[in-house]
Amino acid sequence: MAIVLGANQYGKAETRVVRIYRDGPRHEIRDVNVSTSLRGDFANAHITGDQAKVLPTDTQKNTCFAFAKQKGIAEIEQFAIELGRHFVDDIEPVDGARIEIDEYAWERIRAGGEEHDHAWVRRGGEIRTTIVTVERDDTWVVSGLRELTLLKSTGSEFSGFLNDQYTTLAETHDRVLATLLTARWRYARVDLGWGPMYHDVRRILLEQFATVHSLALQQTLWEMGKAVLETHPEIVEVKLSAPNKHHFLVDLEPFGLDNNGEVFHAADRPYGLIECTVAQDDAPEPGPSWYTIPAFA
Amino acid sequence: MAIVLGANQYGKAETRVVRIYRDGPRHEIRDVNVSTSLRGDFANAHITGDQAKVLPTDTQKNTCFAFAKQKGIAEIEQFAIELGRHFVDDIEPVDGARIEIDEYAWERIRAGGEEHDHAWVRRGGEIRTTIVTVERDDTWVVSGLRELTLLKSTGSEFSGFLNDQYTTLAETHDRVLATLLTARWRYARVDLGWGPMYHDVRRILLEQFATVHSLALQQTLWEMGKAVLETHPEIVEVKLSAPNKHHFLVDLEPFGLDNNGEVFHAADRPYGLIECTVAQDDAPEPGPSWYTIPAFA
Amino acid sequence: MAIVLGANQYGKAETRVVRIYRDGPRHEIRDVNVSTSLRGDFANAHITGDQAKVLPTDTQKNTCFAFAKQKGIAEIEQFAIELGRHFVDDIEPVDGARIEIDEYAWERIRAGGEEHDHAWVRRGGEIRTTIVTVERDDTWVVSGLRELTLLKSTGSEFSGFLNDQYTTLAETHDRVLATLLTARWRYARVDLGWGPMYHDVRRILLEQFATVHSLALQQTLWEMGKAVLETHPEIVEVKLSAPNKHHFLVDLEPFGLDNNGEVFHAADRPYGLIECTVAQDDAPEPGPSWYTIPAFA
Amino acid sequence: MAIVLGANQYGKAETRVVRIYRDGPRHEIRDVNVSTSLRGDFANAHITGDQAKVLPTDTQKNTCFAFAKQKGIAEIEQFAIELGRHFVDDIEPVDGARIEIDEYAWERIRAGGEEHDHAWVRRGGEIRTTIVTVERDDTWVVSGLRELTLLKSTGSEFSGFLNDQYTTLAETHDRVLATLLTARWRYARVDLGWGPMYHDVRRILLEQFATVHSLALQQTLWEMGKAVLETHPEIVEVKLSAPNKHHFLVDLEPFGLDNNGEVFHAADRPYGLIECTVAQDDAPEPGPSWYTIPAFA
Repeated sequence: MAIVLGANQYGKAETRVVRIYRDGPRHEIRDVNVSTSLRGDFANAHITGDQAKVLPTDTQKNTCFAFAKQKGIAEIEQFAIELGRHFVDDIEPVDGARIEIDEYAWERIRAGGEEHDHAWVRRGGEIRTTIVTVERDDTWVVSGLRELTLLKSTGSEFSGFLNDQYTTLAETHDRVLATLLTARWRYARVDLGWGPMYHDVRRILLEQFATVHSLALQQTLWEMGKAVLETHPEIVEVKLSAPNKHHFLVDLEPFGLDNNGEVFHAADRPYGLIECTVAQDDAPEPGPSWYTIPAFA
Repeated sequence: MAIVLGANQYGKAETRVVRIYRDGPRHEIRDVNVSTSLRGDFANAHITGDQAKVLPTDTQKNTCFAFAKQKGIAEIEQFAIELGRHFVDDIEPVDGARIEIDEYAWERIRAGGEEHDHAWVRRGGEIRTTIVTVERDDTWVVSGLRELTLLKSTGSEFSGFLNDQYTTLAETHDRVLATLLTARWRYARVDLGWGPMYHDVRRILLEQFATVHSLALQQTLWEMGKAVLETHPEIVEVKLSAPNKHHFLVDLEPFGLDNNGEVFHAADRPYGLIECTVAQDDAPEPGPSWYTIPAFA
Repeated sequence: MAIVLGANQYGKAETRVVRIYRDGPRHEIRDVNVSTSLRGDFANAHITGDQAKVLPTDTQKNTCFAFAKQKGIAEIEQFAIELGRHFVDDIEPVDGARIEIDEYAWERIRAGGEEHDHAWVRRGGEIRTTIVTVERDDTWVVSGLRELTLLKSTGSEFSGFLNDQYTTLAETHDRVLATLLTARWRYARVDLGWGPMYHDVRRILLEQFATVHSLALQQTLWEMGKAVLETHPEIVEVKLSAPNKHHFLVDLEPFGLDNNGEVFHAADRPYGLIECTVAQDDAPEPGPSWYTIPAFA
Repeated sequence: MAIVLGANQYGKAETRVVRIYRDGPRHEIRDVNVSTSLRGDFANAHITGDQAKVLPTDTQKNTCFAFAKQKGIAEIEQFAIELGRHFVDDIEPVDGARIEIDEYAWERIRAGGEEHDHAWVRRGGEIRTTIVTVERDDTWVVSGLRELTLLKSTGSEFSGFLNDQYTTLAETHDRVLATLLTARWRYARVDLGWGPMYHDVRRILLEQFATVHSLALQQTLWEMGKAVLETHPEIVEVKLSAPNKHHFLVDLEPFGLDNNGEVFHAADRPYGLIECTVAQDDAPEPGPSWYTIPAFA
């Protein structure tokens, strides 16, 4: 038996870049969290401690800031592609780069009935995400969102399920359905209009959540993913991870009150967790970003 | 020397109540986090362990749920007043009640161009708050918000400050100013239109932040608080707590790039923390809720 | 009516100072989080924006680092006193300073059966705290701990409590009692052996929690505070804030199993919250640090 | 093009089970957080909404509690294997189960110089973890720890690295090295002494961190992983994920002070992130638990 170095990567995580565009009186803002990871010929850095091929993570951070000035952050996907391409093309020992970016949305403050030129309030709600992987001859873009909290107060059932000796759950034909959605979708191309794509996928996910009569969260997720793929053939795979944020109907009978779906306890833990993939059957192979390095995440 | 029991209170914290109104096809939702604390004749509960005068915290939780059905949650201030009044009026050993409620906002999902009847997306951003204190003969209402993130990309200076031997900070006449605001305001009355009041105070805070040319965060806070009091004489005091979320201009000179207020590093810690009170000079005395129990918070 | 500036303070929060002592091969470490707040003649900073009397928060941060070198961090109380005294004595507009410090504990890694000279593992568990307030002629020290998680699996009852129409809780004579304790204690003097005092108070709190047969969390807290005061007359007041971390006995009857206090569900929210003060009846007046600025916290 | 259901799983996450053993006066405690995920014939649950093959997540939670009574929680690996084996063997549509457990450690309170029988203080520090995957004919055990915070105040260099036009970092031959380690190791067998194995791997990781003179965090991780594999041939692979928690030497020159590795600012973000795998070259193939479902995590 010999001991060998397996999969590895290193980089700078969570560089918080804020880019202001101030070419005229009306400024623009981009607020992002950038994590870069490099893969390549780094065995010696581990085994002998020789760092001759290691571009410092501090340099990766500097590069994020410099690129924010030079290239700008029009869309997080474009910015991630440029960063990743630079590391792979310009830094000799680097074979692959994984660039992950979160974007926080801001909306203009309204003052005197008009949008202000240079003041914003953070919008809250979901975070837009991208994971771009660049290798010598290929680039993969996986975009998504997380922390999108959704709730419907009717139009959701859960019944006809399997029973065993540990089953005590009652069937229901009318419940609250709520989740804190994480969605990631894989693009087949790298030349898309990233902003409009993002907003349209978000619109589809919300509309499907609202309008599908839900027999289970599994079915809702499937319909959400399917609608995305049907509308956008340039998206070849959607992955959805959805905690079932349980809202338990409170028993008010001891107090002489009925409760026809009106008063709920929003519980923290435990929670159901439903995860699924919806894909085109002829989808091209995913890149390594789709998987991250096994088991690290 | 004798050892005595001093200030004390007990209650149920963070009861997560979701109230759905479903009288017709168009549902309404209220999503709140309720904490109740009772004060009164509870010395024996501590000193001898006799619980005869202690209404269980579990009962307080039940009361929140039952009241959500019976009284409804039209506004968090009204709901808190009703809860507090009940504990003080109906539970003999209770002299005072402190009810603290956070409210999370939801907006309707748009599907097919229209607002959906029973599906929502959580709006994120700031949380609306109230702290109501009820005693035998009086009631005090302190409302507010927290986690309101604001940023302006110009119109902010910091200069002319005091220097000592530990001062290295350079003056600036154009910086990013950002904060994560907590605001609490004290009402002189308990018969107000709580919802419109809240939204108008929020509007004023945002407008002032945007439009005041800032010489320091202190000055911005003062102007924010003053504008609230000038517009709403039924508010007698405003307290503002504002971390200065530093956005440091990144030095891009080593890379041959200028940086005229375009690229910033959004730092986490440490952060400036500016706290101030703006008040009417003839404001009535605050109730005990304004102070909470000393030093617990 | 005029609008006036009320209580206010400003400072630098959460400066993360790590101090290494390396006078010989065996290093020592102090790992602290320092927040400084100054009070004084700062009206103009708010009202006119004139910063001439404002020592920047950046300078306060620098002072923390410089003092860590010059004065050292033997004990957090001593370090806080020195910082506060400096701001009040040396910076003319400053009337008062509030210095809050958290300390994280480390223990030496054992390698080859011996404590290593310069490698540590963070101990986790509770955080040691102090809040020191310095004014022109006086100094107050309030020390404490937080995030001390305690549990006992028997020796805890809750019965004989008040019932109303919303009460459904059953009495119990044997339950799990668990809490995440925050304790603060006020010293009458500023010349004590801070480290031994801290460790002895911690010891007393733990021993009382373990050995008092509990009729309610209120009673346990009272006995904990009382034992501290009885042992250490230089401590004049103890404040305890204790969430009742509910451990619910799981009903296993549907599965044909009994459950004699063996299997529990550790719930998150809601939780009981018990807060009380135990004091010497002739305790000197507390300083302003004991109260913080009203309602900010 | 057709749209198909890809990888999917569902389960109950974060069931907080506390198991007390009270056969005599000296109780024992196990405090765990259990997440179960099932894989199998669940296409219809998604596509048609038919739940006939779906064992509710509520049932999975019930099973955790019932097994805690029936089987006990001697070690988290054993408990996870029993849970997973039950789901796969006894629930017909289930092909695979992934059981993830975190364990929180408690230590007995000392009272009167002796360990107390039924009172504990939570130890803090790292969390022990396991991920067990069970399929029809095989079982894989991956154990680990997370949130292990380590620091050494000397014996760490970083020099001789690659420079490009964005590199400004200075070389150092003496720095603070600190990390918040996540480690996972894969066992080749399922019949081991899980507790002693865990504690010995933890011991090795700590000893290596302390005693290896570090030329880079990469090298330290390699030596940590290698020592584990060399000592325990029943472990075939180790994965380490280590943020480089930067401790920046504070420049005290402006204050006329030197700083020979004595005063550091512990920064939050960004941080280096080093991830690597150390493996036996003839390691058997990992099971699906090693990878989770791609890209969800």
